[in-house]
Amino acid sequence: MRISELAQAADVPLATVKFYLREGLLPPGERTSATQARYGRPHLERLRLIRALTGPGGLSLAAVRRVVGAIESPPEHLHDLLGVASAAVTEPVAAHDHTAVHALLASWGWQVQGKDCASHDQLAAELQALDDAGFTLPDGALEAYRRHMEDIAALEVDSVPTESATAAVRHVVLGTVLVEPLLLTLRRMAHQELSARRFG
Amino acid sequence: MRISELAQAADVPLATVKFYLREGLLPPGERTSATQARYGRPHLERLRLIRALTGPGGLSLAAVRRVVGAIESPPEHLHDLLGVASAAVTEPVAAHDHTAVHALLASWGWQVQGKDCASHDQLAAELQALDDAGFTLPDGALEAYRRHMEDIAALEVDSVPTESATAAVRHVVLGTVLVEPLLLTLRRMAHQELSARRFG
Repeated sequence: MRISELAQAADVPLATVKFYLREGLLPPGERTSATQARYGRPHLERLRLIRALTGPGGLSLAAVRRVVGAIESPPEHLHDLLGVASAAVTEPVAAHDHTAVHALLASWGWQVQGKDCASHDQLAAELQALDDAGFTLPDGALEAYRRHMEDIAALEVDSVPTESATAAVRHVVLGTVLVEPLLLTLRRMAHQELSARRFG
Repeated sequence: MRISELAQAADVPLATVKFYLREGLLPPGERTSATQARYGRPHLERLRLIRALTGPGGLSLAAVRRVVGAIESPPEHLHDLLGVASAAVTEPVAAHDHTAVHALLASWGWQVQGKDCASHDQLAAELQALDDAGFTLPDGALEAYRRHMEDIAALEVDSVPTESATAAVRHVVLGTVLVEPLLLTLRRMAHQELSARRFG
């Protein structure tokens, strides 16, 4: 199909499609003349993927580039998958002292050596932000959060397709990026539901 | 204290403090001369709060303004609290058809009438994004997500302080904004932990 047909099929403005082409997020079409090119199903799927990532997930273009890069060049070992997914979607934060975070992880029986330092920085920054805001977590809340997220992660890790690294990394990256806003929306809706029952 | 001392105590650049003053996010100090003003503990706490909200939570200045507004003008009824918190932190998305979302909520026994339409739009957009990206949730995952988020929300709603509307709205808004990135980081870390155990 032509670029205008591609834009229409993906429901993305033509100018945006051209921008993605210039930025290399969308691979070039097959040249049919000096000024025209043809595009196919992979282009349409890529455009829909970019739209999904920049939509509710709210990913920056830089993060979209990392996600697309991860899907195109999957790591050799399956156990690196989650690191790649995590690195693709994590906006870097300033380095923090990991002592308290490591003690916490160890108390949960989680490994702290040779693991992703970026997420340790994230967790340290988030606990610090609670402190800065003068917010104290309810008793047992952090432990409950950890338990629920571990249960969710178990279900998700069990469903990673293992027949090919490409399928696996695609599943893991998209499952990380696209399910995050979904979980937060469900939590907010559950708050409203339970609060109406309790105080309504 | 002087403005320079305030900036130092909050660990925020002086230019940023002046910007927050101009933007009305930080209330003016008490004038002591034509060019000087004194600031106190409430200013320091407000600055720390803004820093916490713009930090790992990654809130836009517009969202910080809504959060601060909600904390300063709490609603009269406790059951409006979550609506205020949710509206303060939700970036609006385009309106969606709610038919499928309402059917889903009804199947969970959740109320769909007279509830926050913004979160219905969010949920519809997020489910659409999964579809656009060609991502199929594992069997039973959506139901499991709902159950875990309901359990988390129950713990949180039970811990809302009810002695004053100000304390309640502060707790709810901050609990929503600051705990969201924490939950997502714990999920990513749990993925890494379980994936290392499974594939490592």
